[in-house]
Amino acid sequence: MSGLKKKLSPILLISTFILSAIAHYTHFGSIAEFILSAIAVIFVAGFLGKATESVAHYAGQRLGGFLNATFGNAAELIIAIFLIKEGLFDMVKASLTGSILGNLLLVLGISLFAGGLKHKVQNFNVTLAGMNGSLMIVAVIALFIPAVFLNTKSITSSETNTLSLVVAGILIVSYIAWLLFSMITHKDYLEDATYDSDEELPHEHTPAWGKKRSILYLFIATVMVALVSEWLVHTLESITAAFGLSELFVGAFVVAIVGNAAEHSAAVLLAMKNKIGAAVEIAIGSSLQIALFVAPVLIFVSFFMGTPMNIVFTVIELVAIVVSVFIAKSITQDGATNWYEGLLLIAVYLILGVSFYLA
Amino acid sequence: MSGLKKKLSPILLISTFILSAIAHYTHFGSIAEFILSAIAVIFVAGFLGKATESVAHYAGQRLGGFLNATFGNAAELIIAIFLIKEGLFDMVKASLTGSILGNLLLVLGISLFAGGLKHKVQNFNVTLAGMNGSLMIVAVIALFIPAVFLNTKSITSSETNTLSLVVAGILIVSYIAWLLFSMITHKDYLEDATYDSDEELPHEHTPAWGKKRSILYLFIATVMVALVSEWLVHTLESITAAFGLSELFVGAFVVAIVGNAAEHSAAVLLAMKNKIGAAVEIAIGSSLQIALFVAPVLIFVSFFMGTPMNIVFTVIELVAIVVSVFIAKSITQDGATNWYEGLLLIAVYLILGVSFYLA
Amino acid sequence: MSGLKKKLSPILLISTFILSAIAHYTHFGSIAEFILSAIAVIFVAGFLGKATESVAHYAGQRLGGFLNATFGNAAELIIAIFLIKEGLFDMVKASLTGSILGNLLLVLGISLFAGGLKHKVQNFNVTLAGMNGSLMIVAVIALFIPAVFLNTKSITSSETNTLSLVVAGILIVSYIAWLLFSMITHKDYLEDATYDSDEELPHEHTPAWGKKRSILYLFIATVMVALVSEWLVHTLESITAAFGLSELFVGAFVVAIVGNAAEHSAAVLLAMKNKIGAAVEIAIGSSLQIALFVAPVLIFVSFFMGTPMNIVFTVIELVAIVVSVFIAKSITQDGATNWYEGLLLIAVYLILGVSFYLA
Repeated sequence: MSGLKKKLSPILLISTFILSAIAHYTHFGSIAEFILSAIAVIFVAGFLGKATESVAHYAGQRLGGFLNATFGNAAELIIAIFLIKEGLFDMVKASLTGSILGNLLLVLGISLFAGGLKHKVQNFNVTLAGMNGSLMIVAVIALFIPAVFLNTKSITSSETNTLSLVVAGILIVSYIAWLLFSMITHKDYLEDATYDSDEELPHEHTPAWGKKRSILYLFIATVMVALVSEWLVHTLESITAAFGLSELFVGAFVVAIVGNAAEHSAAVLLAMKNKIGAAVEIAIGSSLQIALFVAPVLIFVSFFMGTPMNIVFTVIELVAIVVSVFIAKSITQDGATNWYEGLLLIAVYLILGVSFYLA
Repeated sequence: MSGLKKKLSPILLISTFILSAIAHYTHFGSIAEFILSAIAVIFVAGFLGKATESVAHYAGQRLGGFLNATFGNAAELIIAIFLIKEGLFDMVKASLTGSILGNLLLVLGISLFAGGLKHKVQNFNVTLAGMNGSLMIVAVIALFIPAVFLNTKSITSSETNTLSLVVAGILIVSYIAWLLFSMITHKDYLEDATYDSDEELPHEHTPAWGKKRSILYLFIATVMVALVSEWLVHTLESITAAFGLSELFVGAFVVAIVGNAAEHSAAVLLAMKNKIGAAVEIAIGSSLQIALFVAPVLIFVSFFMGTPMNIVFTVIELVAIVVSVFIAKSITQDGATNWYEGLLLIAVYLILGVSFYLA
Repeated sequence: MSGLKKKLSPILLISTFILSAIAHYTHFGSIAEFILSAIAVIFVAGFLGKATESVAHYAGQRLGGFLNATFGNAAELIIAIFLIKEGLFDMVKASLTGSILGNLLLVLGISLFAGGLKHKVQNFNVTLAGMNGSLMIVAVIALFIPAVFLNTKSITSSETNTLSLVVAGILIVSYIAWLLFSMITHKDYLEDATYDSDEELPHEHTPAWGKKRSILYLFIATVMVALVSEWLVHTLESITAAFGLSELFVGAFVVAIVGNAAEHSAAVLLAMKNKIGAAVEIAIGSSLQIALFVAPVLIFVSFFMGTPMNIVFTVIELVAIVVSVFIAKSITQDGATNWYEGLLLIAVYLILGVSFYLA
């Protein structure tokens, strides 16, 4: 992987990006656009992974992971706003669901699996694991309760919207308080004990770029990933129509895999370098950000756009989110991971994927 | 708070109590009775908090917490028996639900939050936390199973009553065995390691009253809280009718907040004094006592009164109890707490409160 | 118990076994066959317990436990294949459910209770406890997801069978990977720290038989248990018809208790000898083997027999499995057990048993 990464010369990165852009804007046709954007996404995701790694070097594992998750989700937020403008609420919720599943099961699963094959047992801060678990449960409760009340009591559409806004507000406040807690009041408490393990690997201490350049590249890479992701998503509609797939499956799995390519490559790379704390921060942090920040912000944005979207997910989406949270919480709560735990996460992802595909 | 507490002179306590009593028995009118009893409840709750603290000093944190929870729930048991006599089974179940939610989310949440603002991280016996978690899950299962069987199989009313009595009997035996376990066979095993931390605070070693007087005051304070709570609950019916609130919301939130005022003030006070073990014992211990002892006893009492009440709660009540147990278990299971965990519990309480209000 | 066990002379074992065999094959009549096979099962189970203990001495606690669980489940697998041949899918699923409940609640419960009465606190490898918990959750998810999709989406019978085969395949791969992980790549990581505690009990170091003879006896004892179990199960049908019990109750409780007699006696015996790691391995390992291996294999076997059985359990069965997993996970996750935790497991088993009986 390390050897492969070095071959990702800037020339290949820029040329595949430009080719994919030309294909998209001059309408080469779905299949050509799909292939070109799929190739481009590999290179830009690789670039983003390298930039994240470099920023993480300067910022520390946790802040680096947080920055990565935020940059990764910025793209998703933008895409979702476009979908809301088109009134495609179901597609928005399916892609939010898929993003949570993709991060908690696929990204985390492959990270633990790949990291675990290289390193027998990988450890990260057990207190952070516990806090993440509690945050995941709060997120699940916030999505679950409105759906239960809507299905058992006769609530008007207007009351559902009010409830959605209140719950969204509570989640945003909780998320801001979490940043305050984890970045300021209890920063050291959650600090990864294995963070200083870099010291033992002196060659790791010379990242490719300087501090400012790393941040600039992180920003540029995120924009590139967002653009290429959108081009790829754009082609998927006609591609998947031809293959007769359901909107739910495409939204929850295809869009989510592509949309999380950035987090994915960064997390796996960090896990293999034994920086499992940063990998977990990206995977779980990203899914928490989706549930506690991106989804609630979309409720408010849709409200102010005059097309209020409620926070009520379908039963299948809720069940998928609940089981993902349970298994991810169970696996991460002891702060120690291994390849088999990664395999279990992937197994659950496959079970859900096949079920969504057949449904 | 400490300064405020000293101003709670016996004169104010007794005068507000007597004023509230006169208002209640001479029928001043709902609004006047409500205001006077609400003021009185603050003073008697403060008195109870002080008495509990003093008894806890002599008895140790855990036994003190247990005594407090028991005295606090005695009031609820008496109120519930009156409600059963009137055939108000739904109100009884709503107030039991609210009592569990109120203790696990609001009392525990504010305790962790207030305690956490003063003390960065607060620790209590991790083994006790684990046992509490298992007991909570057993309580949830006992309430959940009869409801599931009633909704999926055609069970007669008589079979439901039989099942209710059997489950209630199993819960009471489990609770008595828990007292045997926690107070006798494994007392030291669950002993709070931080209990002796008092030693470092010599001024804490001179409680206001002697041992016997403390116990007497604890008893008197509990009776006063029970009386004032009842007077307040009495006024709520007409007050809430005027505001158009649902019975479920009043039972589960208004009655529960007032009914748990005693546990509430005692737990928060202890948390701020860094006796988080006792605070957790009050909050979780009280909700366990409701689920494992008060509710089952009411099933038997109602049966012997000739008006059998079954143990089947509504779907909304069960879901609310299940999510409360999950988040409380997740937050307490590591035996370490902080302000953010308190905030998460309060957030879940607000989400449930708004949902019950709108439903 | 130790004194009693010594009285189980080979003569009694063989004579009760032969008597029961004669009763079965010459059709003494249900009641006589029931009584004779019930007596025989006690002696063969005792023999199996002794053989397991002896093999565990040579193989180590965990491998010994695994061998015992496998041998115990071989009998269940054979019985289930006969039931599938008769098209009795509901009875198969009920007995699989009962086997999981029986192991997680009754076998584990009585082991912890009996072991806890003799030894104040019993400890086993906490990492293994965590891995077991995650495996249990994956098993629950795999059984839960197909049922949810079947109940919320219109899936054809053929799609249900496809989904069943895919999920079964994923489970079998996960189980084989688990053996690879726990027996090879991370064997020492999961090794029970208390395993060497035998050293303090020198008289334990002289098991009744040599290594080869122990393995031979383990094999013979398993076959005897399988045969006697089948004879007993055979009589139950007519016995229970006379008592008016439901198929679900008989399948999930009566068949399961008898079918797990072997695991049961072995686990309790080991727990009382303070080898709680091996006892937990038998109880939890056996239920994992049922969910991750026996059930999926039956899906494939039924498919190749031309009478495909799907993996969709009833709501009541799923709820019973879910609650069993939750309480077992909560109780074992800290790697420390006591008598009260055993009592809680038994309480949940009783609640489920009464509910299944009345339903």
